[in-house]
Amino acid sequence: MATNVKIFDTTLRDGTQGEGISLSVEDKMKIARKLDSLGVHYIEGGWPGSNNKDIEFFLRVQELELVNAKVTAFGSTRRKGILPEDDANLNRILEVGVPVATIFGKSWDFHVHHAIQTTLEENLAMIYDSVHYLKSKGLEVIYDAEHFFDGYKNNTEYALQTIKKAEEAGADWIVLCDTNGGSLPHEVSEIVAAVKQAISAPIGIHAHNDCEVGVANSLAAVMAGATQVQGTINGFGERCGNANLCSIIPNLQLKLNYSCITASQLESLTGVARYVSEIANMHLPVNQAYVGTASFAHKGGIHVSAILRNASTYEHITPEQVGNKQRVLVSELAGQSNLVFKAQELGLDFNNNNQQSRQLIEQIKEMEHQGYQFEGADASLELLIRDAYGSLEEIFTLESFKIMVMKTVNQPVVTEAIVKMKINGESVYNAAEGNGPVNALDNALRKCLLQHYPALKNIHLTDYKVRVLDEKDNTAGKVRVLIESTNFDNTWNTIGVSANIIEASWQALTDSIRYALIGQAKADVHTEEQKERHGLVNH
Amino acid sequence: MATNVKIFDTTLRDGTQGEGISLSVEDKMKIARKLDSLGVHYIEGGWPGSNNKDIEFFLRVQELELVNAKVTAFGSTRRKGILPEDDANLNRILEVGVPVATIFGKSWDFHVHHAIQTTLEENLAMIYDSVHYLKSKGLEVIYDAEHFFDGYKNNTEYALQTIKKAEEAGADWIVLCDTNGGSLPHEVSEIVAAVKQAISAPIGIHAHNDCEVGVANSLAAVMAGATQVQGTINGFGERCGNANLCSIIPNLQLKLNYSCITASQLESLTGVARYVSEIANMHLPVNQAYVGTASFAHKGGIHVSAILRNASTYEHITPEQVGNKQRVLVSELAGQSNLVFKAQELGLDFNNNNQQSRQLIEQIKEMEHQGYQFEGADASLELLIRDAYGSLEEIFTLESFKIMVMKTVNQPVVTEAIVKMKINGESVYNAAEGNGPVNALDNALRKCLLQHYPALKNIHLTDYKVRVLDEKDNTAGKVRVLIESTNFDNTWNTIGVSANIIEASWQALTDSIRYALIGQAKADVHTEEQKERHGLVNH
Repeated sequence: MATNVKIFDTTLRDGTQGEGISLSVEDKMKIARKLDSLGVHYIEGGWPGSNNKDIEFFLRVQELELVNAKVTAFGSTRRKGILPEDDANLNRILEVGVPVATIFGKSWDFHVHHAIQTTLEENLAMIYDSVHYLKSKGLEVIYDAEHFFDGYKNNTEYALQTIKKAEEAGADWIVLCDTNGGSLPHEVSEIVAAVKQAISAPIGIHAHNDCEVGVANSLAAVMAGATQVQGTINGFGERCGNANLCSIIPNLQLKLNYSCITASQLESLTGVARYVSEIANMHLPVNQAYVGTASFAHKGGIHVSAILRNASTYEHITPEQVGNKQRVLVSELAGQSNLVFKAQELGLDFNNNNQQSRQLIEQIKEMEHQGYQFEGADASLELLIRDAYGSLEEIFTLESFKIMVMKTVNQPVVTEAIVKMKINGESVYNAAEGNGPVNALDNALRKCLLQHYPALKNIHLTDYKVRVLDEKDNTAGKVRVLIESTNFDNTWNTIGVSANIIEASWQALTDSIRYALIGQAKADVHTEEQKERHGLVNH
Repeated sequence: MATNVKIFDTTLRDGTQGEGISLSVEDKMKIARKLDSLGVHYIEGGWPGSNNKDIEFFLRVQELELVNAKVTAFGSTRRKGILPEDDANLNRILEVGVPVATIFGKSWDFHVHHAIQTTLEENLAMIYDSVHYLKSKGLEVIYDAEHFFDGYKNNTEYALQTIKKAEEAGADWIVLCDTNGGSLPHEVSEIVAAVKQAISAPIGIHAHNDCEVGVANSLAAVMAGATQVQGTINGFGERCGNANLCSIIPNLQLKLNYSCITASQLESLTGVARYVSEIANMHLPVNQAYVGTASFAHKGGIHVSAILRNASTYEHITPEQVGNKQRVLVSELAGQSNLVFKAQELGLDFNNNNQQSRQLIEQIKEMEHQGYQFEGADASLELLIRDAYGSLEEIFTLESFKIMVMKTVNQPVVTEAIVKMKINGESVYNAAEGNGPVNALDNALRKCLLQHYPALKNIHLTDYKVRVLDEKDNTAGKVRVLIESTNFDNTWNTIGVSANIIEASWQALTDSIRYALIGQAKADVHTEEQKERHGLVNH
């Protein structure tokens, strides 16, 4: 039977220390629900002793009735020179009504001297008293041994004394923390094995990614006997981030035969990773292991021809095991295999030797040369392919537009757009205001179209990105606009490139609407869950 | 004495397989120069047998007169059933005049059957013949054993036969490739050690990051006896990327005492990582190990107070060893230690108890609540601090602006802006065209100001980013605009937040110019090298 490893998620506490990450109480509630459905065993919700927002979270999280996860509150050992019952920080943990306390203490003599400025003896007493106090109140206590690896390297005997004190006081878990992320896997492996000889409490690992080995350190610890892994979704966290649970869980489960969550929970991993990244308003790197949009994307022509024959030639797992999927990228490097793949998806007979296909390849190469990148704009690519095969109906054409933006000091900006277009041969003329030129243009365009296509009211722009292209050949001074749209059921991406940001936006905008109108995007199904996933519902 | 490990960079070949990466010949030339100055030993420039752009690179790279690096061309073993001298792909390697050939062959029986569809014997002959042919022409030959780890796990004996064939034929290096990135460090460690027993040629490692252990796999291989590491700058590469040299090099050198490059070359690492990311037009994740802007950034108030006392309490190396630096982030989580740090940098007497400081903290909290994030906008933060301390002079005030954008079908978009403002009490009125509303506004604003501040002509906007804020409390429907500006000597970032994109852009734009005008940005030094670093020179 596979050994069980407990997953301790600290996205809501250590994760929020990452640059650019700030979570409201609502955000934390949403993420907690997702983490619970993913099947993590512990959710560290915050530090009630340091932050009022965290206290509110602990009070409200009880409404959620989580099924899998125990909620835990973080705090430090008592302050020097006082009784634990007089320590506000420890009492806050008790007040917020959690079943599990996670408290950290010092393992590194250097930190005892320089950070908390007390004696080695008093630090041991602080650890003992704090764990003992929380245990006496009936809580499960996880003891986080801060800077344990540095402490162990610097003064082995003292570092071991600190965790023995926590064990003696009744700690349920001893978690070894590589707080500054400076240790390497072989060290973690050796030290965890040594600790396993020295104590009998179950051991956990808390790693950071400062040497880009946070995942490997966590695996090394488990292989040396740790049975709890602390980390965050997408590796969010201070500096280079915490160890990334989205890589640790599949590595443990699919590669090393440990048991953490169920197979069907694992299939929700990609969805959870992307959801958390949306809620945290953090861009998910396309190349993130397992869950990135490029994790199973193939670009090299030679790889693409091989995976068309047999996917396992270049894929280390079946992407669906983690809820991801295979993609084939179109690019000048790729030869034609990739276009064949896309055309097959669309049910078109793509033949390298016919004239349409050759013209299309030339057209795409030329557009890539001009700064287009279809890798992130599947919908625009599909429109190009359909157009080349004559299967794209021209639903509307622009005649003109005009946008005005006006501001007077101390007054808000006013933005208006006027659009004149032909829809199925009929002239339409309309105007709208907006929160900026593209939004006004979008609103005016929709007002024109909605009379003919009422289903458009379910289509929303969910992201709008502008990128100034580098001063390369052919792209000097150009911008690339990417627009993401959704009907709650599907999400699609379109692109525009031009020296003028409005021209580029117009291209991406009309591609988005054209794509919606050809019926590829099914505008009829939209559950609450899907709306929520796209962050379009206010609670 | 430290063991030498050779660094083999494949940013220009395998790196370009990454999603969104496309390098012109000019780009490749610039990157090759940087890689050489960083001290890498091999630069793999491309695959001349598959790509004409790569051939041009090999012909032109000879102009560069590289000091440290040998240039190598990539290719596959000969096709099945032909003589090596009849193989166009091998001959292309000879034609491009490189001293080193890197050829890959199949190690995994499954791939022999399914990808190249030949016999196991013919595959061995293909390996032998190809290496032997290139050796007979006087080249150094690096043999890349594709999918070696999967091959070894599936059919150990055959996998070993393939590399023994390469060795027999005279290969100078046998590089074990984890092509699909599916192996873990303990496997790499065991298999490299076993190979070391089986062959006497020097061994290299080529890892990918699909399990987020590309760096750890490379370290494991070196510790098991490999003396060459293949990887890319920033881990660029197909799917989840190649092993990241920017983490491997400092890990090997600062943590494991191997010798790769000189200490002063290592100090250029952060600069090289950021340069390559700019040229490749790829966003460098802020939390990238060692070289990210957040790698040594501290946000948690407790960490900040500790590092103010002693940096090594929370930093695993001195950032300057890799050319990076410590930063302190300002955020609602941080308490006041972080603002103290910033104010000290500005030479201001920040005192938590005076009224100015308390008001400033409230103001920043309120702005963060509205969607501002000063972590990425140091210049805007500095203006706020200076303003609170009364040390910010009001140089100009807006009276009004008006922007018009017009398009008629088949005609380019026309954009004009009219600005009316007071500069040092005098009314100024001017108009300009632009490549979009913000550019037109920027141009008109500069036309107004240039008469009074001619130094502004050296200030350029280098990046303009727009982000739609998630539907959170207080930020519904808002956009955040970040502007990066440079005078070639310094780079600074400013921010604007509003429901209207033009309003937000105006805030960021005027902050950028205000910052330039208070003389923090020294507009007088701009060497060619610095211009080039900012991608502002056309070659």
